Amino acid sequence: MSTGVTLAQGFLAAGKAVGIKASGHPDLALVQNVGPERSAAAVFTSNRIQAAPVKWSREINDGSLAAVVLNSGGANACTGAEGYADAREMAEVTARELGCAPQEVAVCSTGLIGVRLPMQQLRMGIPAVARSLAPDGGTDAATAIMTTDTVSKQSGIMQNGWSVGGMAKGAGMLAPGLATMLVVLTTDASVAPADLDAALRYATAHTFDRLDSDGCMSTNDTVIVLANGASGIAPELSELTNALTGVCHDLSMQLLADAEGASHDIAVEVVNAASEVDAVKVGRSITASNLFKCAIFGQDPNWGRALSALGTTDAAYDPDAVDVSFNGVMVCRGGGIGEDRSLVDLSERRVHVLVDLHAGNESATVWTNDLTYDYVKENAEYSS
Amino acid sequence: MSTGVTLAQGFLAAGKAVGIKASGHPDLALVQNVGPERSAAAVFTSNRIQAAPVKWSREINDGSLAAVVLNSGGANACTGAEGYADAREMAEVTARELGCAPQEVAVCSTGLIGVRLPMQQLRMGIPAVARSLAPDGGTDAATAIMTTDTVSKQSGIMQNGWSVGGMAKGAGMLAPGLATMLVVLTTDASVAPADLDAALRYATAHTFDRLDSDGCMSTNDTVIVLANGASGIAPELSELTNALTGVCHDLSMQLLADAEGASHDIAVEVVNAASEVDAVKVGRSITASNLFKCAIFGQDPNWGRALSALGTTDAAYDPDAVDVSFNGVMVCRGGGIGEDRSLVDLSERRVHVLVDLHAGNESATVWTNDLTYDYVKENAEYSS
Repeated sequence: MSTGVTLAQGFLAAGKAVGIKASGHPDLALVQNVGPERSAAAVFTSNRIQAAPVKWSREINDGSLAAVVLNSGGANACTGAEGYADAREMAEVTARELGCAPQEVAVCSTGLIGVRLPMQQLRMGIPAVARSLAPDGGTDAATAIMTTDTVSKQSGIMQNGWSVGGMAKGAGMLAPGLATMLVVLTTDASVAPADLDAALRYATAHTFDRLDSDGCMSTNDTVIVLANGASGIAPELSELTNALTGVCHDLSMQLLADAEGASHDIAVEVVNAASEVDAVKVGRSITASNLFKCAIFGQDPNWGRALSALGTTDAAYDPDAVDVSFNGVMVCRGGGIGEDRSLVDLSERRVHVLVDLHAGNESATVWTNDLTYDYVKENAEYSS
Repeated sequence: MSTGVTLAQGFLAAGKAVGIKASGHPDLALVQNVGPERSAAAVFTSNRIQAAPVKWSREINDGSLAAVVLNSGGANACTGAEGYADAREMAEVTARELGCAPQEVAVCSTGLIGVRLPMQQLRMGIPAVARSLAPDGGTDAATAIMTTDTVSKQSGIMQNGWSVGGMAKGAGMLAPGLATMLVVLTTDASVAPADLDAALRYATAHTFDRLDSDGCMSTNDTVIVLANGASGIAPELSELTNALTGVCHDLSMQLLADAEGASHDIAVEVVNAASEVDAVKVGRSITASNLFKCAIFGQDPNWGRALSALGTTDAAYDPDAVDVSFNGVMVCRGGGIGEDRSLVDLSERRVHVLVDLHAGNESATVWTNDLTYDYVKENAEYSS
């Protein structure tokens, strides 16, 4: 069955092991647009240290793409001019196989920073993967971009004769602006590049950008959307934006659920803020607190750590008016002691922290994970 | 022997268990200035959620103090109007015992946020501690302010007939602006309040403010310095500033060495920055990275994580010019691959990370700890 990036009509995908990873696991993926149109849009990490494939993909990003080539097993970041030449060669080899220009091929890489890619394997591997491109290859592609991910991530929405699908990888280095990951989205809607760009920016700003698993921003983050008009339908921009946002939300929740070593998924919902910016700021301050994250791991509804985190922001609020609830129990009322914290049950994976600032009418939710032994273990032992 | 806050002439101190802590450990301390002058200066947490004792001490801070009363076993934070009345009553009871005005008594508290203090114990305990005030009570006082600290922290410098001494507590919630802790410093130098304030601000800005153990800023941070002129010597402001900075540096290194669960003390030295602000900014970005801190725990000289952290700042530098060394081995040269990372030995507790921005002549060092299983364990199990 066609899922993920091949849910939409007119897209082919493939994924294979070509020898980049020492483990022999799948490590190279291709997504090709074979539809009547070639609109594309992309957002990249705001980190100033940018991987070679990010530099390449950013440069060629002119609203049109024929394909995306992605590898796991090496980030090709901090690899200098040689690394940039490697990224360009990945696009050139892919373009030769698919019969398009190198400037129509975006490149994404993920893995260890500061190591050159094994180009011999890629020169052999890209043609092999290209030969297996198929209209049901979404799952193979999603599998080939995994690193510390324990499951592949795909999503899709079909409605009114057109659809949006996507795949993602990411399990650590997940932080605002962009949550660290590679994401490829596809749609068979007919969309002009400028509209596709606007819809993508709204979607990522309200989903991946509000996922802060560990506060660490990657050098390789990339979200690319390809639109080919194969459905023959040109939806309203609002419809497209809603569909893209829905798929991005679903993928971001899959990233959260698979975050390295996490035992809780925590939604910090900030309500009655003076502005959406304030709500996001307060949410981020709490999701960035290691002490708060450790407390959740210990199933401790420690509202004092939430308050001490939001006290570091310049958001508008009266410290003596703030309410904080954990899973429905208002343990902090008016900036002080509320309900008995023993009434809170934090044994389930999902945790909902509600912060009422009593300062306006805006709201936002920021997601994070708890800080656990296993997070430390994975990140002390795995180089990324 | 007189150490810590009683190293300087004309200061008395005491510490006892008065029943605030369920464990029966010492939990109440007093420091009294009995010298000819009563200059004082203080800096407090920049957290907007401020504990009741911080509010009290900030209000009465007019350049003169007779005493400081400090308790562990309860932060008296987020306790509303009742908590503020409790802090004021601590000052009132202390003032009655010492024969001064309540407005001459600063109050410091540390422990769990969101719990009222046991005032009955404090009403009985403060007179008992006051009766044991002694010129060699520095160690008792330093012991009585410990929470998760495993050792008490004291320091002192004697020179040219005058001295500066101090004590500190703090083992977690250590983060910029101020590193979370309580610190009392004393000097028998003769200093006007304005000079004392200037010297203290310089000293804390260059020591405690550059200690970022876990990125979490407390609601109770306080550094107070008392000067009484008992030595009869009025040093130059630069001499005083150097001495205060020396004692604060020593105390901050003791805090670092005792940080919760840490197995490495990490100095991130940033050199050749365009400005000191840039150097501090880059240092903080690296010390705030959980992935970097986990890597050090795993004895992995992961320069990619350092680079991806500094890439999130707006400091002036060329990403392709940055060098990074771990314990003397330049593993990243010109933003790319340098020496073999296997040459780096991270088995010792002390780790030196040198970041050369090649963008100017300014430098700064920011200190942090690694992120370990034990940090998570302590903060999942201990409520603060």
